[in-house]
Amino acid sequence: MAGRALSIGILTSGGDCPGLNAAIRGVAKATLGMGEARIVGIADGYRGLIEGRARELGPRDLSGILTLGGTILGASREKPFGERGGDFKTDADEGMDKPELIKANYRKLGLDCLVVLGGNGTQTTAALLQAEGLEVIGLPKTIDNDLWGTDVSFGFHSAVGVATEAIDRLHSTASSHNRVMVIELMGHKAGWLALYAGIAGGGDVVLLPEIPYDPAAIAGHLRRRAAEGKSFSIVVVAEGALSLAESRLDKKERRRLRAASPFPSIGYRVAAEIEEATGAEARVTVLGYLQRGGVPAPYDRLLATSLGAAAADLIRRGDFGRMVALRGGTIGSVALAEVAGKTRKIPDGHELLVAARRVGTCLGDA
Amino acid sequence: MAGRALSIGILTSGGDCPGLNAAIRGVAKATLGMGEARIVGIADGYRGLIEGRARELGPRDLSGILTLGGTILGASREKPFGERGGDFKTDADEGMDKPELIKANYRKLGLDCLVVLGGNGTQTTAALLQAEGLEVIGLPKTIDNDLWGTDVSFGFHSAVGVATEAIDRLHSTASSHNRVMVIELMGHKAGWLALYAGIAGGGDVVLLPEIPYDPAAIAGHLRRRAAEGKSFSIVVVAEGALSLAESRLDKKERRRLRAASPFPSIGYRVAAEIEEATGAEARVTVLGYLQRGGVPAPYDRLLATSLGAAAADLIRRGDFGRMVALRGGTIGSVALAEVAGKTRKIPDGHELLVAARRVGTCLGDA
Amino acid sequence: MAGRALSIGILTSGGDCPGLNAAIRGVAKATLGMGEARIVGIADGYRGLIEGRARELGPRDLSGILTLGGTILGASREKPFGERGGDFKTDADEGMDKPELIKANYRKLGLDCLVVLGGNGTQTTAALLQAEGLEVIGLPKTIDNDLWGTDVSFGFHSAVGVATEAIDRLHSTASSHNRVMVIELMGHKAGWLALYAGIAGGGDVVLLPEIPYDPAAIAGHLRRRAAEGKSFSIVVVAEGALSLAESRLDKKERRRLRAASPFPSIGYRVAAEIEEATGAEARVTVLGYLQRGGVPAPYDRLLATSLGAAAADLIRRGDFGRMVALRGGTIGSVALAEVAGKTRKIPDGHELLVAARRVGTCLGDA
Amino acid sequence: MAGRALSIGILTSGGDCPGLNAAIRGVAKATLGMGEARIVGIADGYRGLIEGRARELGPRDLSGILTLGGTILGASREKPFGERGGDFKTDADEGMDKPELIKANYRKLGLDCLVVLGGNGTQTTAALLQAEGLEVIGLPKTIDNDLWGTDVSFGFHSAVGVATEAIDRLHSTASSHNRVMVIELMGHKAGWLALYAGIAGGGDVVLLPEIPYDPAAIAGHLRRRAAEGKSFSIVVVAEGALSLAESRLDKKERRRLRAASPFPSIGYRVAAEIEEATGAEARVTVLGYLQRGGVPAPYDRLLATSLGAAAADLIRRGDFGRMVALRGGTIGSVALAEVAGKTRKIPDGHELLVAARRVGTCLGDA
Repeated sequence: MAGRALSIGILTSGGDCPGLNAAIRGVAKATLGMGEARIVGIADGYRGLIEGRARELGPRDLSGILTLGGTILGASREKPFGERGGDFKTDADEGMDKPELIKANYRKLGLDCLVVLGGNGTQTTAALLQAEGLEVIGLPKTIDNDLWGTDVSFGFHSAVGVATEAIDRLHSTASSHNRVMVIELMGHKAGWLALYAGIAGGGDVVLLPEIPYDPAAIAGHLRRRAAEGKSFSIVVVAEGALSLAESRLDKKERRRLRAASPFPSIGYRVAAEIEEATGAEARVTVLGYLQRGGVPAPYDRLLATSLGAAAADLIRRGDFGRMVALRGGTIGSVALAEVAGKTRKIPDGHELLVAARRVGTCLGDA
Repeated sequence: MAGRALSIGILTSGGDCPGLNAAIRGVAKATLGMGEARIVGIADGYRGLIEGRARELGPRDLSGILTLGGTILGASREKPFGERGGDFKTDADEGMDKPELIKANYRKLGLDCLVVLGGNGTQTTAALLQAEGLEVIGLPKTIDNDLWGTDVSFGFHSAVGVATEAIDRLHSTASSHNRVMVIELMGHKAGWLALYAGIAGGGDVVLLPEIPYDPAAIAGHLRRRAAEGKSFSIVVVAEGALSLAESRLDKKERRRLRAASPFPSIGYRVAAEIEEATGAEARVTVLGYLQRGGVPAPYDRLLATSLGAAAADLIRRGDFGRMVALRGGTIGSVALAEVAGKTRKIPDGHELLVAARRVGTCLGDA
Repeated sequence: MAGRALSIGILTSGGDCPGLNAAIRGVAKATLGMGEARIVGIADGYRGLIEGRARELGPRDLSGILTLGGTILGASREKPFGERGGDFKTDADEGMDKPELIKANYRKLGLDCLVVLGGNGTQTTAALLQAEGLEVIGLPKTIDNDLWGTDVSFGFHSAVGVATEAIDRLHSTASSHNRVMVIELMGHKAGWLALYAGIAGGGDVVLLPEIPYDPAAIAGHLRRRAAEGKSFSIVVVAEGALSLAESRLDKKERRRLRAASPFPSIGYRVAAEIEEATGAEARVTVLGYLQRGGVPAPYDRLLATSLGAAAADLIRRGDFGRMVALRGGTIGSVALAEVAGKTRKIPDGHELLVAARRVGTCLGDA
Repeated sequence: MAGRALSIGILTSGGDCPGLNAAIRGVAKATLGMGEARIVGIADGYRGLIEGRARELGPRDLSGILTLGGTILGASREKPFGERGGDFKTDADEGMDKPELIKANYRKLGLDCLVVLGGNGTQTTAALLQAEGLEVIGLPKTIDNDLWGTDVSFGFHSAVGVATEAIDRLHSTASSHNRVMVIELMGHKAGWLALYAGIAGGGDVVLLPEIPYDPAAIAGHLRRRAAEGKSFSIVVVAEGALSLAESRLDKKERRRLRAASPFPSIGYRVAAEIEEATGAEARVTVLGYLQRGGVPAPYDRLLATSLGAAAADLIRRGDFGRMVALRGGTIGSVALAEVAGKTRKIPDGHELLVAARRVGTCLGDA
């Protein structure tokens, strides 16, 4: 590729989170620093690439964005390969012309490679595009921290910060009113956020998708606390938490039951179960979108900057089809094909599960 | 009262909020500094006084509480005069023996006066107790800032801080995804919190209980923004906001309709109205208990400390039956009887309403 | 002025502080909302007006700046009338042609009025420019809160927030190591910031320019605390604090002594005095520029927005030569000529001084 | 040890930092959860053990301390082995009877083991005490992150948070006034804090003890920025940074020169060098004690809790003479003897150095 400027496309896909702009800046600054290169910012994730909406990013666009939440490029949840982009299995027809549009626009924009920032769905799409002949580099972004192939993704520690601060706030009210305060956090398939924030916030009960919970175990724990004179409790619930009874159902039936449930979300159901079993007053907070927003935590700025710089290095070496990653404390990379379609859940016996139990946290299972 | 120690009871009543402990500390430090005095902390608001649960507070109890959220005394929503404590009108029988218990415990604890920290209901009860022969001093606490007789109550500015920070966070997601983000804040009867946080957070639409809103006006505003290239908006909704159509109903019918509504709360209804009228994607965040918790803002620590010290001054002068208050920038006091049963709403033409409109905020009415 | 667009110049002068951008946005949005108007942003305060550096501000420039610290226009400490701008007394020659340049550029830019955001020096210059025939409106900005004619200026509450948080941090170290922690805050002539943050942060000693301090009084206070088992203390010092001994000197001699002092600033001297008098270990933190920076507090965003909107109202009415102001809780305005050359100090017997003493704070004088 | 309660002493030594209380709570909760055990809190670090000052910690002492900065036990910089505790080399006589006192009090308190929370000096002393026959477990605490044998110590990420937020604040002023803002951070021997906060805060120049700096290289970098239209810069300086010229001197001579320097600290010298070389205005902020205080960051609460729980595990297994540690993302332990007397510096070619250079940060050396 010597002799002419590289053209590097960049897009952000999926739900927004803190650190996207820091990563864009990292990639762009490290790339521009390599000499002849051009950064093409693609609007609104894969949708913008399908529609050919893009503009060149200059130094002025990068100024002041390190600390800015969200994404200056815009994002969308577009999955150009249809449901395949989601679970890598079905092969729906409806999306099949979108990849062709993407390839055409990739050529039209004169791109030498495409850097995609996103989570599971995004990286799965990235692997498919690489397989179709594009040169793609992935950067791991997710609040849920459930992306395979990396120990941590940017966005996660910012969300842990927001969630922990929220739990801290609830402590005031819980202790003043002798109440059970239930807080529902993000995490459909993996409970990393609830586990981290639950320990950091001193949650008394932490319910995770990975460990089906027994309402009786929770009630027993809260009663023991009451017997020790602790008149309030904090219960942290991942949105993907499920009861033992539910865990024995198949996916379809579970969905049917949830749809018929009188509760707007799992947190409300857990609160009702606790009220019924213990007679205590329980109140619910659903943290929702607040977990995605705001200034990135220092850790995420560092991580996004480092991963962005590492992506530039892969580009320089022409080492495409890979996602940059942090593994065992070191920055490296992993093949997109290996990442695609997988979810990183909390493994049995993970040291934070052990630590949580040791300091007396109830994980709903005993 | 010379010649012996004054005994001063203190209780916190109603929902907890930041600044209660700062006010307890202010009253106690200023009182203890007057020389011979004894502070009796009553547990869990009026309920603790009914049940005779109290303990003396020493310097050690006051250490480190200036910055502590919630209340070290505990709180309850007990209204010893039954519904009278709420709206000062009905005269239900069921609560009539509670005041007798309160008076008996007041004497049994040897109190010379009772300092009550709370909002509308609390001060109304305080006025009734004063009328029954107790010596009572009120301190104005409320997140809603709707307490009559004072320009501001502690707790309010802390809640404004939490709400504004939440709006700031939603901006990231709104702008990244070209969405309408609706945030529902506390404020059943008065919209101070939504108005303050709405202006401070740069809300594009702010809906208040005082100004019935027209869904068409909101939709028009959002369409004009879209026409100007502003693809996202923030809508701040007080929980007591109501539509023009609702405002024409009587209270009973309105309640009936709300109960039959498919929406968990007003924020969800507003989001649905916006989606229907504009086709935009709208998402809802209900801030809930987060508005009550956490470290008090500096302003609330100052206010609570100053009002606490002013309460000690009223006690020294034997000037009972009054609530300390901030009026026109100066600390003074107002008769509890004048405060009781009233709500301070945002008056027509208030300068913040004017300012909000001037900078282009839609208040739902045009 | 009907029939053509008003041209409104705006500049920010003096030290930067949070809220400047919120005020620029408030003035501009409210002005642009009036219909035909043009906002001309002048670079780097009066210096930019002298040099004719300016550009029109459009809606895009105003987007996202409500929460942005500093000033998008840039600022300088230029005093076009020489020292007159500072203390309104001397009549130095060197600066005399600058006002002529300002008037020429005002005409060249086709301005109908000039809105200046700044503190004492800035408003004094504004009054002089008004006297020279320009149409000027002032907006009160200062961290020190020492501007005459308004109860509060934007920037102040943000600085109180930063300073209070810093004091909170020092508490950890003070209590862990049984130390005296001295923190030096801004405030040369007036001690508002030290007083507010001192009370809000629970300072044990607060030293202000308005109350000359006696080192023996401080030592006595700390010894009494030690006798009560309180092994650590927080001492808050305004940079303009001075000792009783110094207060008896004239200004010149005081300055000479300070210059000869071995201490980098007053905080270090107070720490040394405490160590010598009590034998305790004292450590110093100078908060410095941190007091000026960062995201504006919600209160400052509200105040800046409201004052900005009020300025637009004065412009609409052609009511020039005035500074918008908050007085007794209400927004109004005051003649620039009345503001010029004055300093608002904490008056004797101010209610916060009374409150501070009542809760046991030592103000250095007894 | 079956058949009777274990007695576990715990102390915090060296400078305080966020996370100490979380670690105390982690050790105690996990230990108490093991069944029969007794936690003995020793006051003021090794000094309290020398003087025999200790008290048993119950569940009430552990309540609410997870989020509390500083240490509820108190801390001191006492080095019972004299300078040996510092650099593990000299064998001063003056301290030799203190270890005997420690051993006597260890027996008198009936301790089965001693858990020490601290940094380099603390762990070195711990290794010596283990060698003298006590059973000791170390927990890694340091703001500087320079402790050998662990990838990260608690306290570090909280300090990174404080420092990054401070840099964010300085950006406002730097950009508003076209200035160079110099911020001096902790880190005498290792520059981890300056490196992390420097990247996270977007510092333009970052000076570390590990990389001697060339004033000409800094000036060149700032001039290039100016040429690109960037009129302000942020310079992050570790307190142990030194110039190329200094790096060629021996330790003694360097100390002599520093003592004779007119600058209160390195940050001021760097600012003066920049002003002289570039003509720009440079301002200095020394962050100092603010880096030690306040509520621990979520990461530090997690880390301290996990390490505390892991310490309880070592105790249960009777595996003494070790420091718990995080290595390669996993919690384990390392022999105290291996940790003692070493410093963990940033190694040449560390990936964050590489990342910093790639995004254009000047590290002072080229």
